[in-house]
Amino acid sequence: MASTEAPASKAAAAPPPPPPRRGGSTLGDLVLRFLLFASCVVGVVVMVTSKQTELIPIPIPPFLLSRSAKFNHSPAFIYYVAALSVAGLYSLITTLVSFFALLKPNCYPKPVFVIFDVLFLGILASATGAAGAVAYIGLKGNSNVQWRKVCDIYDGFCKHIGSSVAVSLFGSIVLSLLIILSVSALAKRIPK
Amino acid sequence: MASTEAPASKAAAAPPPPPPRRGGSTLGDLVLRFLLFASCVVGVVVMVTSKQTELIPIPIPPFLLSRSAKFNHSPAFIYYVAALSVAGLYSLITTLVSFFALLKPNCYPKPVFVIFDVLFLGILASATGAAGAVAYIGLKGNSNVQWRKVCDIYDGFCKHIGSSVAVSLFGSIVLSLLIILSVSALAKRIPK
Repeated sequence: MASTEAPASKAAAAPPPPPPRRGGSTLGDLVLRFLLFASCVVGVVVMVTSKQTELIPIPIPPFLLSRSAKFNHSPAFIYYVAALSVAGLYSLITTLVSFFALLKPNCYPKPVFVIFDVLFLGILASATGAAGAVAYIGLKGNSNVQWRKVCDIYDGFCKHIGSSVAVSLFGSIVLSLLIILSVSALAKRIPK
Repeated sequence: MASTEAPASKAAAAPPPPPPRRGGSTLGDLVLRFLLFASCVVGVVVMVTSKQTELIPIPIPPFLLSRSAKFNHSPAFIYYVAALSVAGLYSLITTLVSFFALLKPNCYPKPVFVIFDVLFLGILASATGAAGAVAYIGLKGNSNVQWRKVCDIYDGFCKHIGSSVAVSLFGSIVLSLLIILSVSALAKRIPK
């Protein structure tokens, strides 16, 4: 009798195995999603507030012409603002969902979020590339096709564009990191 | 005795549950990776062979000047060719690994591939965005900063650039699809 009771008492003493989690949110996930949201908002605000007006000399010497540089003079910058706005809205929604999932696990649809994250990474990276390419032409010009640089005149405008592209690049890296962490978390929960 | 034998025989008749697969390759995965490789190669070849030489009239009327348009006149196109070349090499390696994994399951490191896929999606999408933005300026020009269009002179060059960007966009979509399918496959194998 004693020999049969011993395993039973051992089993009662051992804690039950934790139930498998259905993709709960983590604090890291929440922080990265908030960083993504912040970088999208900063990127859009810095780009939209980049307007600069300068007096440009015209061929008749004593006269100067007032000309403005605005982000909506370039289709690439318009695409950039649109892409960052949509990504910002998405990241705000996912930040809120991630926050509530911290309070209430088992309600966090991680695989669905990873799929949307991938789509938004494509959009964000292409917008960053497009804005960066146009900004580079504005900075350096292109002598082969006689596209002159504009950053020697509109320096403040170019500083805004450059900062915005840098922030957006940071956002793309955060989003990549978010996807990689989510995939790693999913892979860890697959039984060997 | 008969009542105790019946469940035993049932258990013997039922097929044993299949062992959990450690992220095997599928035919769809192989086809998508090959498509990605093909689109990278086509994108690079079409971009690199885009050189066009035209006779441009100069201010003194009877004389014409021979000028060439080449992809390496623009840093965005150079970045594009570099990005697509690296992505093409990566997709060749993963296509081969995916092919051998079809013959030998249990050797396919899917989570590792998903992580690299995410990085290459960022690179490919940004390169497509950069090349597309410069190509758009070449096509339409930008009157606000007096960047004149070049596609009215170098039409063949612009056709090459446009086709290459379209192929690269297709490659980016294939890569997104590949990541989404991999994540779905990983998510399905998590116990409820």
